[in-house]
Amino acid sequence: MGKENKNKNRVIPEPALRRMPCYLAQLKIAQKEGLKFISSPRIANIMDIDPTQVTKDLSYTQITGKTRVGYEVIPLIEELEDFLGFTMLDEAFLFGAGSLGIALIRDYGLKQFGLNITSAFDVKPEVIGKEYDGVAVHHVEKIQELISPDVKIGILTVPVEEAQKTAELMIAAGIKAIWNFTPIILTVPDDIVVQNTSLYAHLAVMFNRLHSKEEKK
Amino acid sequence: MGKENKNKNRVIPEPALRRMPCYLAQLKIAQKEGLKFISSPRIANIMDIDPTQVTKDLSYTQITGKTRVGYEVIPLIEELEDFLGFTMLDEAFLFGAGSLGIALIRDYGLKQFGLNITSAFDVKPEVIGKEYDGVAVHHVEKIQELISPDVKIGILTVPVEEAQKTAELMIAAGIKAIWNFTPIILTVPDDIVVQNTSLYAHLAVMFNRLHSKEEKK
Repeated sequence: MGKENKNKNRVIPEPALRRMPCYLAQLKIAQKEGLKFISSPRIANIMDIDPTQVTKDLSYTQITGKTRVGYEVIPLIEELEDFLGFTMLDEAFLFGAGSLGIALIRDYGLKQFGLNITSAFDVKPEVIGKEYDGVAVHHVEKIQELISPDVKIGILTVPVEEAQKTAELMIAAGIKAIWNFTPIILTVPDDIVVQNTSLYAHLAVMFNRLHSKEEKK
Repeated sequence: MGKENKNKNRVIPEPALRRMPCYLAQLKIAQKEGLKFISSPRIANIMDIDPTQVTKDLSYTQITGKTRVGYEVIPLIEELEDFLGFTMLDEAFLFGAGSLGIALIRDYGLKQFGLNITSAFDVKPEVIGKEYDGVAVHHVEKIQELISPDVKIGILTVPVEEAQKTAELMIAAGIKAIWNFTPIILTVPDDIVVQNTSLYAHLAVMFNRLHSKEEKK
């Protein structure tokens, strides 16, 4: 293997981690433009942050920039993809095969970024047995039967009143990380990772910003 | 109208705004459980925050809690939905009819929360002319022709290398708020609202947290 990524499994501060996919995107654009090297001031300028921030963030990876020329584009892309866990497919189960759940199953972007949804669960008889892009929907009671030690991620897209209960069920079955798309704050044991992504909360922020600007005119 | 919402169009701090959909979700659960009133300590306890925070957040709305009994559940639900802009349908155009874009068109949850996607745009000949849940995909050049002053929101789900260019096109056509699903930091004029929602950045954070916990064992 040679390439031993000693930092990959360290806990990286969330703001730095969140910027990394942005660095990756900018590097891919640079690659398409035929650039071999990119400097931290240039990355900083595109992202509207301080160059020292770029250097600091990228120091979590194994790639270091060269004086004057900066970072070598292709190795840094490869390093970031590996570092961010995008090159390794993590198997995931999805809970709640409603509109958003099915949308996530169909978004093959997730697979490109390392997340492979292999089974979906619901309680509604009308969706159980259905298949979306090859992912079958099972009754949630089947979780114990279908789960394997490889499945550590659960995606939560159930109705709000089912969120906490379903999270507990997932954890009991062995899920270690919950990607929570509900607006509910989940109560979970300390060793469980929860990533909250409430689309509707983002929508609320956008509406407020837009409507308050309209008001001012 | 009677109900004049003087605070609705004020700029509310983002952390407070982001908690509001969570209050709303908890209130809906309380409503289903048949509760008529809910106290701020109870809400605080469910959400694992301080009761004074709850009181402060909810003071942005027009509803005030009553001593000892707390907030009346149904009026607070209605107020929050109105306050968050979820009761009014905002028309939106979507840019980038790829996998994630189509998923968002199909997620009728967005409509329930006030966002109505009415047209989609792309440049790829193979998707132009297609329809998803009644939303037609047009060539991006048609934007000027199809836009109306009612369309103030644009959803950005194009490939990263098209993100900045497409944002500029949207703004030139009159879009005032961009819901950016790409990991690109957009450069926009001051009067344009940008809401960033990078699913893959959230994924990166979750992978890091999960893999660093696995490492520790």
